[in-house]
Amino acid sequence: MAPTYTMAGGKGPNSYSQHSTYQRALLEVAKEKINEAISTKLDINAASNRFNIADFGCSTGPNTFLAVQNIIDAVEQKYRKETQPKPDDNIEFQVLFNDHTNNDFNTLFQTLPPSKKYFAAGVPGSFFGRVLPRDSLHVGHCSYSLHWLSQVPKGIADGNSPAWNKDIHCTGFSKEVAEAYLDQFKIDMGTFLKARGEELVSGGLLFLLGSCLPDGGLIDQEELDSLNFPIYPAHVAEFKSVIKDNGCFTIEAFEKISHANEEMPLDPEFLATTNKVTFGGVLESRFGKEAMEKTMERIEEKCPEILPQLANAKPGMQYFIVLRRI
Amino acid sequence: MAPTYTMAGGKGPNSYSQHSTYQRALLEVAKEKINEAISTKLDINAASNRFNIADFGCSTGPNTFLAVQNIIDAVEQKYRKETQPKPDDNIEFQVLFNDHTNNDFNTLFQTLPPSKKYFAAGVPGSFFGRVLPRDSLHVGHCSYSLHWLSQVPKGIADGNSPAWNKDIHCTGFSKEVAEAYLDQFKIDMGTFLKARGEELVSGGLLFLLGSCLPDGGLIDQEELDSLNFPIYPAHVAEFKSVIKDNGCFTIEAFEKISHANEEMPLDPEFLATTNKVTFGGVLESRFGKEAMEKTMERIEEKCPEILPQLANAKPGMQYFIVLRRI
Repeated sequence: MAPTYTMAGGKGPNSYSQHSTYQRALLEVAKEKINEAISTKLDINAASNRFNIADFGCSTGPNTFLAVQNIIDAVEQKYRKETQPKPDDNIEFQVLFNDHTNNDFNTLFQTLPPSKKYFAAGVPGSFFGRVLPRDSLHVGHCSYSLHWLSQVPKGIADGNSPAWNKDIHCTGFSKEVAEAYLDQFKIDMGTFLKARGEELVSGGLLFLLGSCLPDGGLIDQEELDSLNFPIYPAHVAEFKSVIKDNGCFTIEAFEKISHANEEMPLDPEFLATTNKVTFGGVLESRFGKEAMEKTMERIEEKCPEILPQLANAKPGMQYFIVLRRI
Repeated sequence: MAPTYTMAGGKGPNSYSQHSTYQRALLEVAKEKINEAISTKLDINAASNRFNIADFGCSTGPNTFLAVQNIIDAVEQKYRKETQPKPDDNIEFQVLFNDHTNNDFNTLFQTLPPSKKYFAAGVPGSFFGRVLPRDSLHVGHCSYSLHWLSQVPKGIADGNSPAWNKDIHCTGFSKEVAEAYLDQFKIDMGTFLKARGEELVSGGLLFLLGSCLPDGGLIDQEELDSLNFPIYPAHVAEFKSVIKDNGCFTIEAFEKISHANEEMPLDPEFLATTNKVTFGGVLESRFGKEAMEKTMERIEEKCPEILPQLANAKPGMQYFIVLRRI
């Protein structure tokens, strides 16, 4: 089985669920924008009184619960305005939480908000492929997930390839490596959009949030540091180009969005813990628990040295994209 | 949180997934009957080219995978006969695996058949209540689950109640205890049918399989032995009465069904392991791991003593019920 990249499960001190406030901040800022897009751009005629929402790359919570509740609030508000529901004719929501098959769905299910007013379902499988029946989805959401590629690009781990990346941390700039990553991004984003295009009803919306790079300039230090994992923070133009090539969607919004945690001071403890909950699981599955723990100790030791480099890196950009299914 | 009753998770030697061949035997015998019911009684006009199947009380597999594949095979066969699909117009299946929130869904997802041709989703929550949107389900299935009640009946654990059941193993017959269990069964089966009635489309089918008791006669020894858990093997007449009271379904079939493992020799090892994977989790969550393990040791010691009693017990009956949503 190809390795898949999931966040650290459970609810303990080293779990993703305890260390995802950075990602949460973006959702809080995006709430108003999502509300507005649903109010003005969603076609609810197609939806009848059943409404399906999916979060692609949901991880274990709690951020996903906030994200889907924001969407539900906005849809309910729109229904109240635009329809005259009879007392027994209230809309019913089904929320489909999608992530890799080895995501910790048990923790996700056990921490579902007790007051939730939707039917919850977990959908295991890579979002770089179909995970839902066609024409079954009204709103899709994907936050801080699309920088993960489906695999390390071809050649990166091949000693005979010009794109070979020998070191654990990429130590210099390589055109071949960058091109290999961009090619993989185009393939993956293309299959992501093709799959969502089949799953979404006509007039349905797809919200994409996360980090990318503003156009212009060279690859930045932060990107180089993450090149050993299948992570690629695309440039804005690269993103737009793949969406247009797909042809199923109109781009209703493509905005830079700021959030409170963006300027978070990069202290060693924060950086070490973030690395652990994000990459620890992958390292453990490849090299074993002991090797993972030793690596994490080293990262913690090295943090003070790495921090000045990160501080000099070209800043990324938090994006908010609204696509509408034609 | 009220205790819920789930089978032992994981894939190890003491897991339900390794010890459910008894339950599997019934599915194998039921395959032909399910095929026939789908062929003659399912209304596929309502289904369009999306078809949703749910298994209520799915546990961790692998039995549930066999059950849903049998249903899919039958539906595909019916479609091939009755419709003229265009090449791009093939039917798409979504399978909704339902069980308690603390069921081990991680194991379920990680052992999904690699060759499956359906979209899988896990649905956490008690089936004694709605877990799916209305009119969203075409075929429901529930095997060896409906003998579990939603709770230990009221009074059973109350020292001042005439239905008080003091012992860990019920040592004698009590009319009050039996009535309390029957009342709880009626409530639970009623809410089960009400929920499925809302979830199923008109013309959809509900398959119920499991153990019950033939009509007539007193409560049997096996039932008495299980009275400390919320388990109730209903009599046929009790079952039928609740279905009629609900009013949403026609009874298309209510049959005794035999399977290969029915006459399985009751050896101590089989009995001890069955107890462990079925009740071990509940005991552990109530009394702790140590107490659970000691109890299981005792059960293993006591097995030779209990076996002759079980051999004299009135035999149960494996049922196969087909309900059709009016």
